[in-house]
Amino acid sequence: MTFERPWPKGHLHLEDLSIGQRFESREQRMELDEVKEFAGRYDPQFFHLDEEEAAGSLFGRLAASGWHTAANSMRLMVESVPFARGLIGAGGEISWPKATFPGDTLRVLSEVVEIAPSRSRPDRGMVTLKCQTLNQHGEIVQVFNPRIVVWRRPATE
Amino acid sequence: MTFERPWPKGHLHLEDLSIGQRFESREQRMELDEVKEFAGRYDPQFFHLDEEEAAGSLFGRLAASGWHTAANSMRLMVESVPFARGLIGAGGEISWPKATFPGDTLRVLSEVVEIAPSRSRPDRGMVTLKCQTLNQHGEIVQVFNPRIVVWRRPATE
Repeated sequence: MTFERPWPKGHLHLEDLSIGQRFESREQRMELDEVKEFAGRYDPQFFHLDEEEAAGSLFGRLAASGWHTAANSMRLMVESVPFARGLIGAGGEISWPKATFPGDTLRVLSEVVEIAPSRSRPDRGMVTLKCQTLNQHGEIVQVFNPRIVVWRRPATE
Repeated sequence: MTFERPWPKGHLHLEDLSIGQRFESREQRMELDEVKEFAGRYDPQFFHLDEEEAAGSLFGRLAASGWHTAANSMRLMVESVPFARGLIGAGGEISWPKATFPGDTLRVLSEVVEIAPSRSRPDRGMVTLKCQTLNQHGEIVQVFNPRIVVWRRPATE
């Protein structure tokens, strides 16, 4: 099949990675209407949906759902971390040290922190990244340390 | 202001919670078009977008983004865990032991596993939940252990 793919195609295999290797994403702005749309569907709480009531919340004003920050961060990681056959994560520790607000511009810095070749399956390994999402002030709004399946280069390629 | 809120209003304060307390959500089906729409916006990878190519992926068929499972799980948690002033999470460990597929029906079981009153701020505490997202076969597709700010009942209420 030949068609224009909407997704980036990665090229890095397990043997191309090293501890400390870094990847930097482009920037993406979080728009107010998208913040409310996401929250309305997936995180319908007053501090994500109503400016007036949000002023009395812990955030002090309308804030994006942490899951919206996570989803946008994933988009930026998919574009900037070019692992062959994509990013399939088993999970990891996630935290939101600061909230994201409408109008903020996010970018993601990803760094390879662990590389563990599989003992039972010689065609792959598990790589741990440290992915920091920063806002336009350079403040960290999310840290996620996913464990990702990374493939070795096929012998016949 | 009086208007119909689209969000649930919680009533439980820190002193209403106990270790082992459980909350069970309703069920929600993951539809194919929503799976593709979410992935197209936030996780544009071939195994989330193209049935034919997904057959050759680790998933074996088109699978939902883990962040879509997380977002839908949040919706179910917001509806089923009625903490006063809502659910504001600082983060936690998340894992996806199995993929979610279009047509799957998810529900979330949440359990209180830790209650830590704040030493510096007497009006609140930090509560850790264990939130398991299950599919229609009873298989665990996500485990998330969020740390959530929970408020004490105001003395004047």
